[in-house]
Amino acid sequence: MNTIPINVLLFEGFEPLDVFGPVEVLGDLEDCRLGYFSIQGGLVGCRQLFEVSTRPFSKVSAGGILLIPGGMGTRPLSGDDSWLARLRQLVEESETVLSVCTGSALLAAAACLEGRRATTNKRSWTWATSFGREVFWQPRARWVADGKFWTASGVSAGTDMALAFVRERWGHEKAKAIAARMEYIAHERAEDDPFAVQILQGQPG
Amino acid sequence: MNTIPINVLLFEGFEPLDVFGPVEVLGDLEDCRLGYFSIQGGLVGCRQLFEVSTRPFSKVSAGGILLIPGGMGTRPLSGDDSWLARLRQLVEESETVLSVCTGSALLAAAACLEGRRATTNKRSWTWATSFGREVFWQPRARWVADGKFWTASGVSAGTDMALAFVRERWGHEKAKAIAARMEYIAHERAEDDPFAVQILQGQPG
Repeated sequence: MNTIPINVLLFEGFEPLDVFGPVEVLGDLEDCRLGYFSIQGGLVGCRQLFEVSTRPFSKVSAGGILLIPGGMGTRPLSGDDSWLARLRQLVEESETVLSVCTGSALLAAAACLEGRRATTNKRSWTWATSFGREVFWQPRARWVADGKFWTASGVSAGTDMALAFVRERWGHEKAKAIAARMEYIAHERAEDDPFAVQILQGQPG
Repeated sequence: MNTIPINVLLFEGFEPLDVFGPVEVLGDLEDCRLGYFSIQGGLVGCRQLFEVSTRPFSKVSAGGILLIPGGMGTRPLSGDDSWLARLRQLVEESETVLSVCTGSALLAAAACLEGRRATTNKRSWTWATSFGREVFWQPRARWVADGKFWTASGVSAGTDMALAFVRERWGHEKAKAIAARMEYIAHERAEDDPFAVQILQGQPG
C-alpha cells in the first residue's frame, strides 16, 4: 500500500483549529502520513502562544494532499510574491488541496483558484475575496469542492470539510467511524451554513 | 487587570483536538494568557506526527486555569506515580481545572476527583472510570462541572465545555462572540450527549 503524504503548510500566525480540526480527522487514515512544513522549517508560532516544529517546504513530497490553514498570518503572506510562488508550485505538484478559513485567500492570491468555485472565512469575506481575478466565491457554503480544491469556511468548518473529504474518498463508514471516535457531531451538508447570513446582511469586512 | 494564566499540560501521545479546541476558545479571553508545559519541558509529540514546544512543570504559575487533555499517552502516565504526584500538586495550586477526554482518568488516578461528579471519553469508559475510589462518573454528559473541576467527554466535547466555562465566567455574550468568530455550532446543553448511548448499550471497554 502506497502511503499518501498529507502536507500541512504552517506560517507564523496560523489559526490552530484550522489545522488541528482537520488533522484530528485525517490522522485516522491508515494509508496517509501527516507532515508539517513552513517555508524555512523550524518552529512556527501563533497568537495562542505555542510553537510547532516544521520541516522546510523543500521537503514536501509531491503527489499528496496539501492542507493550508488561515489566520492573521495570511495577511502579510498575501503580498509576499516569493511565498506565493512557492505555494503555487506546491499546489501544482499536489493531487488534492484543502484550505480552511482564509487559507483560500492565499490560494486565490497565488492564482490557483481561477475559474473555480471556492469559499472562505465569513468574517474576513471582503478581504479574502479581493484576491483572484475570476474566483466564484460562494457566500453560503460550509465548504466547497471543485476539482482538486476543497475550500472551507472559517475555522471550525475545516473539521466538517475534512470529514466530507474522507466520506468522498474513503467512504461514509470511515467518516462516520472517525467522527464517532472524536465524539464529533458532524455537519454533513455543505449548504447548511449558519454563518452565511452575516454576509447577506453585508456585515463583514 | 491581572492576567490569569491558562496552563496547558502536555505529554507524549496527547490528543491534539483535546488541546486545540479549548485553546481556540480560551485564546480569545483578553485577560488570560496561555502557556504550554510538560514535566521536563522541550518538544512534545503525538500520533499525528507533530511536536509542540513546552516549558517544564516547574514554570507553571499558581492560581490559574489548568487544562489537561487525553490521548493514548494517558495510559503510561496513569501508572506513573511521580508524574501523578506532580499533577496533584499543580491541581491543588490551580483555581480551576479543565480536563478533556481521558484527561479525567489522570485526575482520578491522582486522587483529585474523590467525591466529585465527572465524565470522560465514552470509548475508553471502562478503562478511564477504573481510576479513583469514589468518583461519580456520569455516563450521559457532554461535560460536567463540579466545584473547581470541569471534565469533558471525548475530544470534540472539550470545545463545548470550554465555551460553557466561558459562558459561566465571562458571560453568554462573550461565549457567543467566540463561537461566532470560530464559525462553531456550539452544543450548549451538557446533558445532550449523543455518544452516551454506546455506554448504555455496554459497548466500550
